[in-house]
Amino acid sequence: MNQPKTIDLNCDMGESFGQWRMGKDEEIMQFVSSANIACGFHAGDPDTIAKTIRFAKAAGVAVGAHPSFPDLEGFGRRKMTIPPETVKNIVAYQISAVAGMCRAQGIELRHVKPHGALYNMAAKDTELAAAIASAVKSVDSNLILYGLSGSALIDEAKSVGLRAINEVFADRGYDAEGHLVPRGTEGSMIRNPEAALQQVLELVGQGAVTAVSGESVNVEAETICIHGDADTALEFASTIHSGLLSAGYVIESP
Amino acid sequence: MNQPKTIDLNCDMGESFGQWRMGKDEEIMQFVSSANIACGFHAGDPDTIAKTIRFAKAAGVAVGAHPSFPDLEGFGRRKMTIPPETVKNIVAYQISAVAGMCRAQGIELRHVKPHGALYNMAAKDTELAAAIASAVKSVDSNLILYGLSGSALIDEAKSVGLRAINEVFADRGYDAEGHLVPRGTEGSMIRNPEAALQQVLELVGQGAVTAVSGESVNVEAETICIHGDADTALEFASTIHSGLLSAGYVIESP
Amino acid sequence: MNQPKTIDLNCDMGESFGQWRMGKDEEIMQFVSSANIACGFHAGDPDTIAKTIRFAKAAGVAVGAHPSFPDLEGFGRRKMTIPPETVKNIVAYQISAVAGMCRAQGIELRHVKPHGALYNMAAKDTELAAAIASAVKSVDSNLILYGLSGSALIDEAKSVGLRAINEVFADRGYDAEGHLVPRGTEGSMIRNPEAALQQVLELVGQGAVTAVSGESVNVEAETICIHGDADTALEFASTIHSGLLSAGYVIESP
Amino acid sequence: MNQPKTIDLNCDMGESFGQWRMGKDEEIMQFVSSANIACGFHAGDPDTIAKTIRFAKAAGVAVGAHPSFPDLEGFGRRKMTIPPETVKNIVAYQISAVAGMCRAQGIELRHVKPHGALYNMAAKDTELAAAIASAVKSVDSNLILYGLSGSALIDEAKSVGLRAINEVFADRGYDAEGHLVPRGTEGSMIRNPEAALQQVLELVGQGAVTAVSGESVNVEAETICIHGDADTALEFASTIHSGLLSAGYVIESP
Repeated sequence: MNQPKTIDLNCDMGESFGQWRMGKDEEIMQFVSSANIACGFHAGDPDTIAKTIRFAKAAGVAVGAHPSFPDLEGFGRRKMTIPPETVKNIVAYQISAVAGMCRAQGIELRHVKPHGALYNMAAKDTELAAAIASAVKSVDSNLILYGLSGSALIDEAKSVGLRAINEVFADRGYDAEGHLVPRGTEGSMIRNPEAALQQVLELVGQGAVTAVSGESVNVEAETICIHGDADTALEFASTIHSGLLSAGYVIESP
Repeated sequence: MNQPKTIDLNCDMGESFGQWRMGKDEEIMQFVSSANIACGFHAGDPDTIAKTIRFAKAAGVAVGAHPSFPDLEGFGRRKMTIPPETVKNIVAYQISAVAGMCRAQGIELRHVKPHGALYNMAAKDTELAAAIASAVKSVDSNLILYGLSGSALIDEAKSVGLRAINEVFADRGYDAEGHLVPRGTEGSMIRNPEAALQQVLELVGQGAVTAVSGESVNVEAETICIHGDADTALEFASTIHSGLLSAGYVIESP
Repeated sequence: MNQPKTIDLNCDMGESFGQWRMGKDEEIMQFVSSANIACGFHAGDPDTIAKTIRFAKAAGVAVGAHPSFPDLEGFGRRKMTIPPETVKNIVAYQISAVAGMCRAQGIELRHVKPHGALYNMAAKDTELAAAIASAVKSVDSNLILYGLSGSALIDEAKSVGLRAINEVFADRGYDAEGHLVPRGTEGSMIRNPEAALQQVLELVGQGAVTAVSGESVNVEAETICIHGDADTALEFASTIHSGLLSAGYVIESP
Repeated sequence: MNQPKTIDLNCDMGESFGQWRMGKDEEIMQFVSSANIACGFHAGDPDTIAKTIRFAKAAGVAVGAHPSFPDLEGFGRRKMTIPPETVKNIVAYQISAVAGMCRAQGIELRHVKPHGALYNMAAKDTELAAAIASAVKSVDSNLILYGLSGSALIDEAKSVGLRAINEVFADRGYDAEGHLVPRGTEGSMIRNPEAALQQVLELVGQGAVTAVSGESVNVEAETICIHGDADTALEFASTIHSGLLSAGYVIESP
């Protein structure tokens, strides 16, 4: 008898700030196995971090840190040219803050997933990826580093001896090279929950995705990112969650 | 044979920010036993924190976190009315950030000393003091909490089971109740290094201080704060350091 | 024949920040005569300010600046002890920024209304009120200063020769002294739009309000604040707007 | 008889922030004709802006705004990819803030000079340069826009009808194309005040500079930037100021 295949569902959370609300964190928790919590640099504040950790702990969801460039106004989505040594320190600072706040609630930080422009730049820029991997390792070598599937960040994480997890996206289109279709471009977003589920099942079942141009492309899928801030977030989360369960998968953090 | 009496000399450090320099941290390290490092809320940034930890480690100086209200522009010196639960979270966040960055350099955070308005308010406001003590304990119950000698912060730290250390000041005048003469008032600052040394020797030797009004007042002295940002900082540090050694004290962190 | 009585309806606007949305500014514009635009210190950013000015201009609504303490995380609602000279400068800075951005769209800034803790503190603290009035006058002596009805801010505005406007609230309860019932206290909020309208009609018609304790208290009402960020904001705005029109009032900015 | 040739000497000022000091603004004022004042985004705060305007007014120095990307921690020196429409708004906001604070002291803002990464990017990026020029014009079409000599910013300023001023640097090396030698590269900085004066006299007298590689290159010089934050700032300022006077120039703002 075969062991059931496991898969991780992750979601970016704790992205409220002060009086401003974003995301349906508490409701989404029931559908995911890993929560990436904003660390205060693109979103999040100490109250929000504490509250989101509490939600994750109550739901048995693994907690990760979601560090960013320092850019609240741009939500960490604007490229910044920051020296790698500084990137290392800002990432170490953010991971440490969330790790300590987990410990304050009696749980351990499990993983790190860079946010926004930092995530995208580290997918290609080896030096930046190495700075992030080095920061993670220096704070806690047991942390798992999530990166874009097949990216430089995955390579650099492995080369310093960290466990690295290849991330794919439920609601983003892929091109014939297995890269994400850039936001704002035709086909970049999948807006139908059932279509997103089909992409997810193909990714986890076959390690492949059907590109917007029609070809099947190999893409390694160890964790699936779903988004928590759209109006349809709960419908997507629920559809993908039940679809994976029906297909016999166990949803659990790595 | 008597054991030599030990005393802790501490200094606020890491108070540069970005391109702006403050304090002679590297030079001061040779004279002190404990460094309180700004956590990014009133001063400090991840690069500065990493650098200051490196200086402290090289000098064998114990590292503490120096958390503050979130107020870069006011350097954490302006009172803010922040709910205790939020204070608890902002303190936990800051301590955790510096603790993790210590761990990244292979050392352990040893103590916490609140900064500026937070320090002063927590000396009198029991609820605020309890929030800080609770934050410290939640992150790491082995951390030592520094507070104004005889203040509410000392009481609250002890009541949650933390080790608390009574702090006195080398260069500040005391009134007949053993309170600090408010900044900007006649007698608030001691500007002569030898006079500061005499006050320190009286504090550590007799547990008393001569108030500006002439009386001797009992004040418990477990750690002495010296300041690192004045033009005369090195002269003060050096005078007090050698004066204590000459008087037979061992300068070491608690 | 009597001239119809005019009354100003104002609303705090432009309180989104970066990716975070707050308020239904565009929809509310049709109901009000004055918009108080956040200046970037408690909320608002340059894009949001420009957009909100555009909405106000399109709707023919008078634009005001809504300056605050520098406290994004606390939304300007936390008391801060800032020296009056600094308050003067931070207010002048914020007013100037919004005034220039109005001019960039071909309209003139008309009024200033302090926000949150700054508004509440300036209602009682004469020195703070004087600093605000002085800032407003220095930037443009034609600006109208909105303050809590009967407050120190109104007095200080008049004493420097500014036009001052007494503000009342549609949805807040008043006590027997004509002061607002503090938020979080029984009776502080009026949650029924019709009840709010009755309070408004009493305020503008008789210059009086029925306190939560039942007495009628004199309160001068030159402008009525309605809130734009609650779920019921549009219903309140619409009810009060039509109720005033039905009662024969002309809604216009001072 | 020939009219004496005039030349503008400008300096970046008001770059302190909160408790942190930078630059010898008050002393430098006697040597320059134009002061570019930081607007709070890379440096400066409302108190510092007010104080620096006061110094400039007392010295009869023309005041300009020195807007930047929003990046206090990086002092506005880090590239950020911000959409041109947002750049337009952040520049309009900053100019407006300083313009209003000038008016509060009874003087008029005269010019605008972008700072750091924004200045450098706008020298080459036409769209960014157009956004800045458009912001300046929208706030006040009489403002003069300073840009790197011969850059895209100069072109875009002229094309919207603004007066544009070509800026050269006293203490920076030029390459054979008339571009600045990048910071951190051999020859990028001129450290001898007399050598800087020779470069200045060549620039203003002949509209040319001797490149680090030895050639003479044509560079239009309408204003000369001197720096105010180095230890040698006053010596440089004084040497260049007297050298220009001795050579018969009148130092005055455009």
